[in-house]
Parts: sequence; structure tokens; C-alpha cells
Amino acid sequence: MHVQLNPTGVLNLLSKLEVDLLQQTSTIEKYRLFRNCVLAVLNVGSHTDSSYEIYNKYRDFDIKLLARERGIKIELTNPPESAFVDGKIIAGIHEHIFSVIRDILFICQRYEEQLTDPRQITHMVFDMLRNAGALEVNTDPNMVVCWGGHSINEEEYKYTKEVGYQLGLRGLNICTGCGPGAMKGPMKGATIGHAKQRITSNRYLGLTEPSIIAAEPPNPIVNELVILPDIEKRLEAFVRSAHAIIIFPGGAGTAEELLYLLGILLHPENAKQQLPVILTGPGSSKAYFDELCDFVEKTLGKEALSKFEVLVDQPELVAQKLSHGMEQVREYRKTQGDAYYFNWTLKIEEQFQHPFEPTHDNMAELDLHLAQPTQNLAANLRRAFSGIVAGNVKEQGIAAIKQQGPYILSGDTSLMTDMDKLLRAFVAQGRMKLPGSAYVPCYQIKS
Amino acid sequence: MHVQLNPTGVLNLLSKLEVDLLQQTSTIEKYRLFRNCVLAVLNVGSHTDSSYEIYNKYRDFDIKLLARERGIKIELTNPPESAFVDGKIIAGIHEHIFSVIRDILFICQRYEEQLTDPRQITHMVFDMLRNAGALEVNTDPNMVVCWGGHSINEEEYKYTKEVGYQLGLRGLNICTGCGPGAMKGPMKGATIGHAKQRITSNRYLGLTEPSIIAAEPPNPIVNELVILPDIEKRLEAFVRSAHAIIIFPGGAGTAEELLYLLGILLHPENAKQQLPVILTGPGSSKAYFDELCDFVEKTLGKEALSKFEVLVDQPELVAQKLSHGMEQVREYRKTQGDAYYFNWTLKIEEQFQHPFEPTHDNMAELDLHLAQPTQNLAANLRRAFSGIVAGNVKEQGIAAIKQQGPYILSGDTSLMTDMDKLLRAFVAQGRMKLPGSAYVPCYQIKS
Amino acid sequence: MHVQLNPTGVLNLLSKLEVDLLQQTSTIEKYRLFRNCVLAVLNVGSHTDSSYEIYNKYRDFDIKLLARERGIKIELTNPPESAFVDGKIIAGIHEHIFSVIRDILFICQRYEEQLTDPRQITHMVFDMLRNAGALEVNTDPNMVVCWGGHSINEEEYKYTKEVGYQLGLRGLNICTGCGPGAMKGPMKGATIGHAKQRITSNRYLGLTEPSIIAAEPPNPIVNELVILPDIEKRLEAFVRSAHAIIIFPGGAGTAEELLYLLGILLHPENAKQQLPVILTGPGSSKAYFDELCDFVEKTLGKEALSKFEVLVDQPELVAQKLSHGMEQVREYRKTQGDAYYFNWTLKIEEQFQHPFEPTHDNMAELDLHLAQPTQNLAANLRRAFSGIVAGNVKEQGIAAIKQQGPYILSGDTSLMTDMDKLLRAFVAQGRMKLPGSAYVPCYQIKS
Amino acid sequence: MHVQLNPTGVLNLLSKLEVDLLQQTSTIEKYRLFRNCVLAVLNVGSHTDSSYEIYNKYRDFDIKLLARERGIKIELTNPPESAFVDGKIIAGIHEHIFSVIRDILFICQRYEEQLTDPRQITHMVFDMLRNAGALEVNTDPNMVVCWGGHSINEEEYKYTKEVGYQLGLRGLNICTGCGPGAMKGPMKGATIGHAKQRITSNRYLGLTEPSIIAAEPPNPIVNELVILPDIEKRLEAFVRSAHAIIIFPGGAGTAEELLYLLGILLHPENAKQQLPVILTGPGSSKAYFDELCDFVEKTLGKEALSKFEVLVDQPELVAQKLSHGMEQVREYRKTQGDAYYFNWTLKIEEQFQHPFEPTHDNMAELDLHLAQPTQNLAANLRRAFSGIVAGNVKEQGIAAIKQQGPYILSGDTSLMTDMDKLLRAFVAQGRMKLPGSAYVPCYQIKS
Repeated sequence: MHVQLNPTGVLNLLSKLEVDLLQQTSTIEKYRLFRNCVLAVLNVGSHTDSSYEIYNKYRDFDIKLLARERGIKIELTNPPESAFVDGKIIAGIHEHIFSVIRDILFICQRYEEQLTDPRQITHMVFDMLRNAGALEVNTDPNMVVCWGGHSINEEEYKYTKEVGYQLGLRGLNICTGCGPGAMKGPMKGATIGHAKQRITSNRYLGLTEPSIIAAEPPNPIVNELVILPDIEKRLEAFVRSAHAIIIFPGGAGTAEELLYLLGILLHPENAKQQLPVILTGPGSSKAYFDELCDFVEKTLGKEALSKFEVLVDQPELVAQKLSHGMEQVREYRKTQGDAYYFNWTLKIEEQFQHPFEPTHDNMAELDLHLAQPTQNLAANLRRAFSGIVAGNVKEQGIAAIKQQGPYILSGDTSLMTDMDKLLRAFVAQGRMKLPGSAYVPCYQIKS
Repeated sequence: MHVQLNPTGVLNLLSKLEVDLLQQTSTIEKYRLFRNCVLAVLNVGSHTDSSYEIYNKYRDFDIKLLARERGIKIELTNPPESAFVDGKIIAGIHEHIFSVIRDILFICQRYEEQLTDPRQITHMVFDMLRNAGALEVNTDPNMVVCWGGHSINEEEYKYTKEVGYQLGLRGLNICTGCGPGAMKGPMKGATIGHAKQRITSNRYLGLTEPSIIAAEPPNPIVNELVILPDIEKRLEAFVRSAHAIIIFPGGAGTAEELLYLLGILLHPENAKQQLPVILTGPGSSKAYFDELCDFVEKTLGKEALSKFEVLVDQPELVAQKLSHGMEQVREYRKTQGDAYYFNWTLKIEEQFQHPFEPTHDNMAELDLHLAQPTQNLAANLRRAFSGIVAGNVKEQGIAAIKQQGPYILSGDTSLMTDMDKLLRAFVAQGRMKLPGSAYVPCYQIKS
Repeated sequence: MHVQLNPTGVLNLLSKLEVDLLQQTSTIEKYRLFRNCVLAVLNVGSHTDSSYEIYNKYRDFDIKLLARERGIKIELTNPPESAFVDGKIIAGIHEHIFSVIRDILFICQRYEEQLTDPRQITHMVFDMLRNAGALEVNTDPNMVVCWGGHSINEEEYKYTKEVGYQLGLRGLNICTGCGPGAMKGPMKGATIGHAKQRITSNRYLGLTEPSIIAAEPPNPIVNELVILPDIEKRLEAFVRSAHAIIIFPGGAGTAEELLYLLGILLHPENAKQQLPVILTGPGSSKAYFDELCDFVEKTLGKEALSKFEVLVDQPELVAQKLSHGMEQVREYRKTQGDAYYFNWTLKIEEQFQHPFEPTHDNMAELDLHLAQPTQNLAANLRRAFSGIVAGNVKEQGIAAIKQQGPYILSGDTSLMTDMDKLLRAFVAQGRMKLPGSAYVPCYQIKS
Repeated sequence: MHVQLNPTGVLNLLSKLEVDLLQQTSTIEKYRLFRNCVLAVLNVGSHTDSSYEIYNKYRDFDIKLLARERGIKIELTNPPESAFVDGKIIAGIHEHIFSVIRDILFICQRYEEQLTDPRQITHMVFDMLRNAGALEVNTDPNMVVCWGGHSINEEEYKYTKEVGYQLGLRGLNICTGCGPGAMKGPMKGATIGHAKQRITSNRYLGLTEPSIIAAEPPNPIVNELVILPDIEKRLEAFVRSAHAIIIFPGGAGTAEELLYLLGILLHPENAKQQLPVILTGPGSSKAYFDELCDFVEKTLGKEALSKFEVLVDQPELVAQKLSHGMEQVREYRKTQGDAYYFNWTLKIEEQFQHPFEPTHDNMAELDLHLAQPTQNLAANLRRAFSGIVAGNVKEQGIAAIKQQGPYILSGDTSLMTDMDKLLRAFVAQGRMKLPGSAYVPCYQIKS
């Protein structure tokens, strides 16, 4: 089965030179990455978060870039059927495929070498959002970033939908990591809220990365999809796009996100930043949040707790608070002369920008002692959880674990104990992997 | 609590004369009707289908028309809170209120006397749809009318959502009686389908009537609401707007709709009409449809069965068939020089147009014998079920039953037996009333 | 040559009943009127203002209404070629044809009997503008009515274009009687001004009447055309739509317009009305305006002069003043709760609303004495000039003059002398008829 | 007087890095160029084509780039008043200013070094059009490039307006060099034609270059302005954007354009290209075109005459032919798989792409002998005329002439005679400079 697709978005208008470059860039490795991401996007709706399974199932899937006088086309061979309705590709998936090509093959040409200058890293994040049409110039603050696990239970999922619905009723838009679970619920809820309020300019922004897209494929409701090259740029895209942040229950990834966020908000230059942060979930998630807060307090201190609010089982109140918070965000940005569509004044230290590669060595060498500046500790903890996410669902991480056994983490005993407790709780609550697969920890805490 | 609202739609541009007339038409009875309909619209999301309960709960609710130099405004006193988000009315409900004013106070001025000429009745139906902006000139056939019960079980509800989703994925729009259950599910499903296909011109057309609106208040997703004056005009609006019809499981109302439809489709002048009709539901509804088909065959004969198709547990196939059917509908209308937005060539006999008032006398006098022309029998059976719906959920009907006891229906023994069997099945399956209330039959079969 | 055209605007959605009525209303007289108006619209760009010539030239032109299942179509036989580009009708003319059908055949059905109630007359004017889509709800005041002669010299024409350009640069829209000369210049100028300001919602509102449309056919730039049934309703439509009024040099028609306007503005109830009025023209028109002011002062008194301003050769200043004036108009309407799109609070006495038929008897009987209330005098003078316009360019008037000789006007000697002087000036300046034809006065002043 | 302006178009969304770069690129020379271009754009409507005069008159004009957290702003000091309406800049001029910044400061950063690879040159042209939003993806061929003199007489000017009007009536768009005369007339005419046809997506594409923008400032009707870096890229932009080309009477610049076009169309690879070319003007221009054809035939041969058509005094026929021609253009592009918005398949030899600097030496060295391949001759003749344009109206050229006297051109006697004859005719007809200034030739023919 062969399907040809015309380009959308910026790829619609390419010069011959650009088409040639695009075809040439497809080194074997790039091609593999690109093919797998397209496959992930096509395979949305599948019920596994194992990229291995997916790639294996569709071994005979292929994608080709075809050059035409007037630009580019792509040809899919043996794509998953679920992406098609009566032989026609679903419009949302069609768009996502070209988002993948845009972000993985096209834009990255400009950033061949590893960036080290923080200003250039931020520029790249901005540039990628801009090319995706994800920066809206004449709109008041209204973007709520929602974080949370891809594997949550039915009650939690319904709760994220309800929160999304309440946000949608208030004209707020949604940005998530665009996988299933807490990343899909708020968007579905908001869709209904927006419909009731007759809002047609609704935005469902999905920010993902190549190494996670297969495990958490973007739902076609996502109408602006950006594939950032690594988790650090993805996190920066999240916090600079956000006018408010909600954290639902989740696993290691959610912990990584919270630690990243707190590490930044605790920076003295960000003391006056307006960025409402709310942790919320259904009644049954109270224990979860207690545990999380406990860990934060013990590691980053009491001040860290002041950077967010916990509201259990109050979906309407969450939406009300954020809706009101938008006014403060607007005022703050205005007084700073800052844009609404991108938070330029937010200070992000380099240690939060540089990619952390979770090799066994790097993981083992992480400085996990309490006796270091709070920000450094936040950065290191962030890295630790990032590594665990990689070991759980990212292709390279899984392969490394398979070969070399679990990551070894070590540091202060009390810290290690707390961390262990938190991670065990995640495992017990089934937050590490989608249900159906027994979870084998990819780490070992050595105290 | 007082809330003032500006008009929307055609009421936005009224002359002084029209404003004066509008204020004067408010006879006590009109006012009561109008107030109750607005209350119903505001009270969406409540979990009762007893209009009495609703009217009782909001006794102190009031609505006033205010004249301004530039037109009209309305003032609500003590409206239900659920219609508001942080003190601001939900945009969809705002629109619905002015749909009520438009259809109950404004347009009806043109049709003061009871219409008897069939052409004028059809003109009125057309005129009301036109004023509501519910006639789209330059669009290919795509409107699927979905009928079915307001009280259906969770499995059936999910099924209607799935069908709606599959229709939405194929770019089809939804028209229902705009209450809960089978009238809401397809719209919610289609909303997600449309979002995935990036369709923003989606239509969710709701056709209701004053006497049922409280029991089945329109969901705010409905973005075109028309309140026809009685069930006969509402049914005509359904079939002339429809490019295809789906019938989900339901109770007496659904039976009424099916009999009305068959009575019309069996007319020789409609022999070549293109109007796909599919009865569908989840696997568990198979027995229900068997029973219904059995009743149809026994009463209206084998030919009636050829006018529709039954597809159990095949949501995707339903959508595919209707999607393909649209092509035939288009061709047929084209060859007839007929409009796509209104089926002028469909022949509707007068007996299906004239309002039937379900008094005890009228019900008792219904000719329910098999020895009459099929169409007459269909018309009479339709009336019988219509009366039962009134006795179940319409205010006047309920009051009449309260005072005079159940309706008495009589006719051929075999017919009465079949009818009794069907109605008992509806009762047993909980299709007559929303759960939570024990159903006391409003009719008695006298064989 | 036969051409079939599909309907536009409200005629796009007609019921069968309406189509039938439309076809039946075509009495011979109605048909003649309607055919002639369509011919006039098609014949735009011709260089004669003699309707006789036009009607004679296109004797074999015909128009038919065709009924289809889905509504109406029209068929033109032998239409003027100038309305077509390579066999396709110009879109603007296409729209105008259906404006004619809408206003002359369709809407007037609602107003069969001669209206006498002032409220109903105003309602009719409103209703016709509304049906034409000429009432914009959410727009700030920006409509400048431009009056002036259809026969003006090149210098004056260029001046009207320059004023229109300056208005267009300031985002103001134009409304005129939609013929050539001072009715076309401002629109052409504004088109360029709007283009430079990137304004795409530009409005060029043309208000005409059946008896003048042939002599002054609407330019296709007019994108909202309304054909009011008589000059009185047309004048009411002008002043209720206007947020400001400019009067360029003109002949008897322009004098009629000025007298009508002053008669209304001098009404005590209109003392606080905000409606800027400016008389303007090129340097060479100074004498003309002096004469006009002189006549106004002598007949209506000094106060009348305070109701307008004369600005000679200052196109930019005119536009600036009106642009600033819009703010006051907005404030006034707001404090009155009045609409921006229709001036409901403007008091128009009945004597300005009732049609004046310029028969020889009616003209002779006009009370043209100074010893009467100013408003009555204004009303009678208005009628006198109205009759002269009819005798000059309206079909019926011309026929009556041909048969019975010139109208006889009589009254106070001094008034008659002033009037004679003014009219002679119009004749001398070539303002009574398009150049190329010697003007034979259609009136006689009897002092 | 200081005025601050917000950015439009692509400059609306800049990163900090880009803002910094933008500010830094302003070397003194760049700044001077940029300032002068902005001044030219602001000074539209002036009646001189002497850039010296303009620059002298506004010596105290200044422009600054201001960096803000959210991007860039500009500040103008003492701008020409004519660009403002009541203190507010005209929207079209506002856009043009940021087109200048985009093309002169922003995009050129990507092309710092002189490009030599033909593919890269074409890519740059494409890139600049794309950034300007001047490439429309989903539109059928409809762009008519109009060339002709900036100094033409009133009759010719009216003729260009009439042609533009006829093109506009047929839904065709206009692209010109965007100065006065034959570059403005077609756009003004088309504006009226488009208005009558209710076309709101009208495009008035202006292609200019920094060295000519002061002498031929873009009319604000131009709604897509691109400033190509030199005449060669500008000419490439013209021919690759064009679906048809009209050549009105003009001077040396128009001769340059015709020779460039013929040089390309005579290339064997372009033999099958579909690109209708029509030379047209009013009756009085017949002699002019005869002379031009004569010169073309004598220099490039008979075949060159087959590449275009001459139609004198037939504005409607011109528009009809081009309107029909669009169908062939569409077919050709389709069969080639080429884009409609950019003619990729048109072969342009390097000699037509590389910039020619008209120094006295380069001019003297031009090979103007008949005994060379036709294409080379066309290229050299093109350069000769290009130099004369520079000597007439470009700043650098004028300065060089002032210092070193006229350019010396030499070659075959017969060729030199023909050229001399043609140039003398241009001078005699006043086509070299705007009226009001006596023309002193900037060249000397040495035979």
C-alpha cells in the first residue's frame, strides 16, 4: 500500500536547493529517527508505550521524500491503517507528519553543531516554535501547560478531562507533552468547553521530542505540534510558552518536570515572575501529592513549596485561579515590555539548558548530595529523574539498560532514602509504564 | 441576582415597531411558555426530565424584555447558576436563550392563526429554519439526523458517541432532538472527530419544541437551535433537513419518529427518494431492534422493512454507508433541481402535518385497526405513540393523566397485543423515563 | 442572447410559497417598473440621463423569473453588452440586479397598502436596509452621506474624488444616491484611500429609487444597493443611516436634499442631534454656495445657517472635521442608548415622510409663502424642488410636462424671485441635465 | 517630531539574537542605504525622480531600531508629513517601511557573500519573495507583470489605467516595478476593476531595488513590496513570478527589461515555455513600438519578434488575450510539475544573473558587436541600457557621470547607429526623466 501526501505548513514553499538539502540530509541515522517518528505519529491510538513493539510491528513501513519541480512530496509504504478513514489520512495526522519532517529534517539543518551559547539555545527553541506557527502575536495570555503521567488510572483521567473542560469554558488553551493520559485528557475536555463557548481559535499545543514520540504519540486533537530535539529544549519550550502550569499525578517524567520548574523559579532573578503553578488531582491522589511535597521540602526546602499550590479535587477552582492569574501574567509582561507569546525574561541557567545524556556513567556520577546550592541540587535531581524516564520508555535508554543493567544512583543516604520512597510509590501506583506490563525498575539506589 | 443580556442573531436588528410588538405579545400564557423554555435552556445539565421539578425548583426565576432605543435586551432574575462560568453566561446558552425568544415570541407573530394549508405549514418550517440560520446554501449534503432515547444506558450512550465520532471523522454533521442520551452522544463524538479532521464549520443542529424542552434541554454544543411549535412541524423539519437518518435505541418517542418516517417513505411519490435510514446500537440492543422490526412488519408490512437497514454494533460501517450515501442524495437532488439544504420534493401527507392533540378523547378515538391503508395506519400509530410521549414527559400530558387517569387505547386485538408487547419492553428496558424514577404507565391497552 | 443568473443575498433562500408569490406579483405595471430598473442597472456606464433613450434603445430586452424546486433564477434576454466581461456578468452588476428584485418585487409584498403611520414608514425604511444587509451592528459611526449633482463639471468631479480619497484614508465609508457625478466621485476616491489603508471592510452604500435609477444608474462599486420606493423614504434612509453629511454642488435634487435636511434639523426635538453637515466644492464653486446660503437664509432664516458649515476648496479639512465629528456622534448615540447603524432618535415630521406626487395640480397648489412656520416652508420648498427633479429626469414627470407644459409655481413675490434666481443659476451652470442636451425648464415661476 | 512604529510581517516575531544582529548589521553604509530607502518609501507622492533632491530636502530625517524585550520597534525622526493622515502613518506605508527593513537588514544577513552559484541566486530570489508573503500556493495563474516608463504622458498613463481596469475585471493581479507612471496606472485601474468584481484577495506586487526606490517610490496601493538587492535579481523575480507580461511605452529601463526577457525566451530550453508577452499603448504610441521592434529585429533577429505581440490601442483585447493565456500557462506548469507561484523551469543563463556594475570602464568594455551569439548580444545590450538607467536615476550612476562625464559606448557602426536612434527617440519623447527637468544624456555613442 502506497500513499502520497502533499506538504503542509512551511514545507509547502521550498526552493529546489532546500528540497535537495532535505533529501541529502537523510543519513541513515537521521532517516531511522525520522521514519520512526512518522511511524509513531501514524500509530496514534495504539495501546502500548513500547517503541520496540511498535517498530517491530511495522517493520515493512517505509517513507520516502519525493522531489518535484514545485517542491516536495512524501510517499508512505504500508502505513498503519488506523491513521486513515476510508483510505484518506486523518487531517490532523497529515499535519503531524509534516511537523515531524519540518522539525527533524528541515529546521535542524540550521543547527548542525551542538549549541553551547545559552542565547543560541533559547533562539533555537523560539525559532522552532515560530516555524510551527506556535507563537501568536496578538493574543492575551491564555496558554495553560498541563503536565502529568501518560499512565494514569481512569479516575485521574476523568479528572484531567474535567479540569480541561473548566479551562476551556474560560477560554484558556492547552499545551501538553501530547501523549496519552494526563496529556490527552485536558485537551479532550477543553474541546467540549471551547465548543460550548463557541471558541473556534482554540489551540492544543503539543511539545514532544523524538525519543519519546513513539511511547507517547501525539493525539490528533493537537493542532500545533513541535518536536524539540531533546528534553531540555522541550522543557524550555514548555516554560517559555506557559502562562500557567498545572501538574497532574504522574511518574518520573512528571517529577522531572516539577524539579526543572522549581529549579528555575527559585532563581533570584525570577523572584518576581508571574507564573501560577497548581498541582491537582482527584481526591484519591491526595497521598500522592503529600509525598511529592514532602520530597520537595526535604530536598529543595520550604521556599520551594511557596512556588506552587496544591488543590485536590477542585477542578473548577483550579480553572478559576488560573483564569484570574492570567491578568497578573499580562500585567507583568506588559511592565517588562515582554512578549505574551514567549517568556523572554524568565532566567534559565545553563545547567538546565545543556542536554544530559543518561549513560550509566553520567547517571552514576550525578552529584546527589544535599550540601550544594539548591539550584544545583534541583538540576541534578532533574537529571536523575530524566535518566529514569529514558530507562523506562526511551529507545536508547531501554537498550542501555538491557545491556548494562540498571542505572546506579548514589548520594546522601537521607536523600537516597527519600528518592527511593518516591520512586517505589510511583511503581506501586503503576505510574511508570502503561498497564499490562509488569514494571522492572531501571535504576538502583545505592546509599 | 439580575443579569442583562444583549440579543444575538436576528434579534440583534429589530425596529421599534418590532420591539413594541414583542413586548405586547407577552400574553400571560405566552409569557409562561416562554419563561419556561428559557428556564429549560438555562437549566441544562440537570439530572431530571420532570419539567414540574424544574419549574418548581426555580419558582423565583423571572425574565423580562427591556426596550432600548436601539432594540431589545433581556433581564434574567435568579437564573440557575449552572449556566454561568464565573458570573458570565456560557456563550452557547446565551445563543439558545435568544433562539427561544426568536422562535417563541418573534417569528410566531407571522403565524398567529392555525395553519391548515399544507404549503403554508411547510413554508413555516422552512421560514423558522431560515431565520435560525440553519439552511446552508453552498454545502454538499452532510446532515445526519440522529434519533433515539433520552434515557439510554451507559453502553448505548458510549455507542452513540462512537457513531458520532465516526461520522465526524467523515466530515458529516449532526442533527438531533437536542436533549440528553442519544441526542447528545453523537454530537459529543462528532466534536472530537471534527477536531481531528480540522473541520471548523461543524454544525450541531438541535430541533426541539416548547413542550419537551424542559425534559430534554438542549446541550450547549448545539450551535443551531430551532424550537418548532409542535411535534408535527419538528418532525417535518427533521426529515426535510436530513440527508440521512440514524435511529438509536429509544422509547415511545423513537417509535413515533420511526412510524412517522415510514408513513412518509411508503408514499408512492417518495418511492425514488434518496434518504438512507439505519437503525443501530451496541450488541446488547439486538433484541430491541428485532422487536421493533417485528412490530413494523406486522403493522406496516414487509415493504416497510425495505425502507431501512439494521446494523448492530458496527459504528464504523454505519458511518461509511452514510458517507457513501451522501453521493446518491446529492445526485438525486441535483436531477430534481432540488435544494441540498431542504428536501422540497419529499411528499408529506396532510395527516402527518396537522397537529394531533393527545386528549383522552382523541387518544380513545384513534383508529387502530389493521384494515386501513398502510399510510393511515402509520399516521394513527404515530399519534398513539406521540400521546404516550406527552403523557410521559410533556407538561400538559402529565397534568391530564394526573386528572383523568391513563389514556385508553383500543383497536384490533392482534395489533393491541403487539403494541402492548413493545411498550412493555420499553418500560422493562427503562426507556420511558430517566433512571431514578419508577415508571407508571400513562396508557392502558384495551383489546 | 439569453443569460441565466442565480440569486444572491436574501433571494438565495426562498420557499416555494415565496417563489410563487414573486411570480404572481408581476402585474404588468410592476413588471414594467422592475424590467426598467434591471435594465438601468445593466446599462451602467451609458452617457445619457434620459430614461426614454435607454428604454428605447433596449426595447427587445426582457427578463423572466424562473421557478426551480430549490428557488428562483432569472433569465435575461438581450441585455446590454457593457454589463458583461467576456460573456460573464460583472459581479457587482449581478448583485445589483438581485437588489432590484429584492426591493421591488419581494420586500414590497409586505407593504402592499400605502403606509400612513409614521412609525410604520420608519419601520419600512429600516426593514429595507436590514434586508439589504446595510445595517452593521458592531461598527463605530463611520458612514458619510455625500449629496450633489449627477451633472457636475470635471473640476468639481475631481474635487469629489479628492474628498472621497481623504475620507477613505480616514477609514470612513461612503453613502450616495449612487448615480454618476458627485455620487460616483467620492466612492472612487475612497476606494483608493481604503486600499492604501488596507481596509477591506469598505462600504459603498447606494440608496436610489425606481423613478431615478435609469437616469442615475448605480456604479458597480456600490456594494450595498437599496432601492427605496419613493424619494421621501429614500431621504429618510439617507438621514437615518448618516453619521455625517457632505453636500457637493448640484442642481434641483441637491437643493431638495438640503431643504429636507434643514427642515428636519430645525425641529426642536433635534436640537441636540449630532450630525455634522458640510457644504463643499472646489474654489470655483464659491459663488454657488454663496447663492445657496443666501437662499436658505432668506427663506428659512439665520438659524438654518447654523446647521451646516461651508468649506471651499479644503478637501482634507472636510475629512478631518468629519473624522473628529464621528466621536461626538458616537457619544451622543451612546448617551441616548441609540444604535450606531440607524438614527432612531432623529425626529422626522410626517410632512417629510408622506410621498408628494408632483402633478401639475399639486405643484400649483404648493403653499410657497414666507408667512408660515419654518418647517412647513422647508417642507413645501422641498416639494417644489422635488417636482422639478421629476420634471427633469423622472419618466412620469417628463411625460406630464410633455403633455401639459411646465409646472406653474406661485407664492410670495420675494420668495419666487429668489427661487427663480437660484434655478436660473443651476441652469446656467449646467446642473439640471447631463451635458450634450440643451435644457428646457420644466417649470414656470409665477410671482 | 518622533514617531514609533511596531513591526509588521515577519519582523513581528524576532528572537533576541535576531534583534541584536539586526542592530549590529547597521554599518554606516548599510545604515545610509536603509535610511534612504525608508525615506523614499515615506516620501511617496513627491514629484521628483531625483534622489539627490529628496535626500537633501530631508537631511534631518532619521530612523532608529529600538530593541525591546519582545522584539523590535523603529523610531522615525522628522519623517515627511505626506506619509501621515492626521498624525497617523498610512497603513500601506507602514507596511512598506518594514518591507525595507526585512529585505535590506534582515534577510540579507543570510546572503553576506556575493553569490555565484546560479542555483543559489535563484534560491535567494525565491527566499525573498517567500519572506514577503509573495508566493501564493493555492491560486491559479493570474499575475500580470507590467513594465513601462515612470515618465509617460497623460494619454499613456490613462491607457495603462484602462488596461489595468480590464485586467482587474478579469480577476487578474498586477506586478510592477512599483514607481509612478506605467508602474502605478495598471494598479489603480485594477483596483476599480477588482472592486466591481467584488474581489478582495487582490494582489499588487511591487518589485524594486535599493538604488531605484528613491526615484520610483512604491505607491501605497502596492500590498506586497519586495526590495531585491540588484536589478538582475529583480528582473529574475519579475520573470519567475509572471504568468504574463505587458510592456507599455518607456525609456531605457523598459528597453533593458525587453532585452533581458528576449535574451531568456530565445534560449532553446525555453522554447516551449508558456509566457504571453504583449507590447501595448495608446494610438499615439504606434511609432514608438515600430521603432522598438525595428531595433529588436535588427539586433536579435526575426525570431525575437515571435516572442511577443504588439497590440496598439486595444486595452480590452490585451486583457482578453492574457486572460485566455492563463489557461495555457496553467496547463504547461501542470504538465511540468512546476509551481504556479514561481516559474522554476524557466532557464536563465548565468550572464543574466550576475550583477553588472555600470562603471565607466565596464560600460566602455561592453561587447556590442553583431557577430556574437544572439543571447550574448541580448545580455550585453541589456547591460548597456541598464548602465544608462543608472546614469539617469540611480545615485551612484549620477555621481559617476558628474565626476567622469558620460559613459562611452562603442561597437559595430550599424548597431551603434540603431541604438543612437532609439535613445534619441526616448529623449525626444521625454521618457528619460520626469518632465520639468531638461535631459542631459549620460552616454555617448562612439561608432
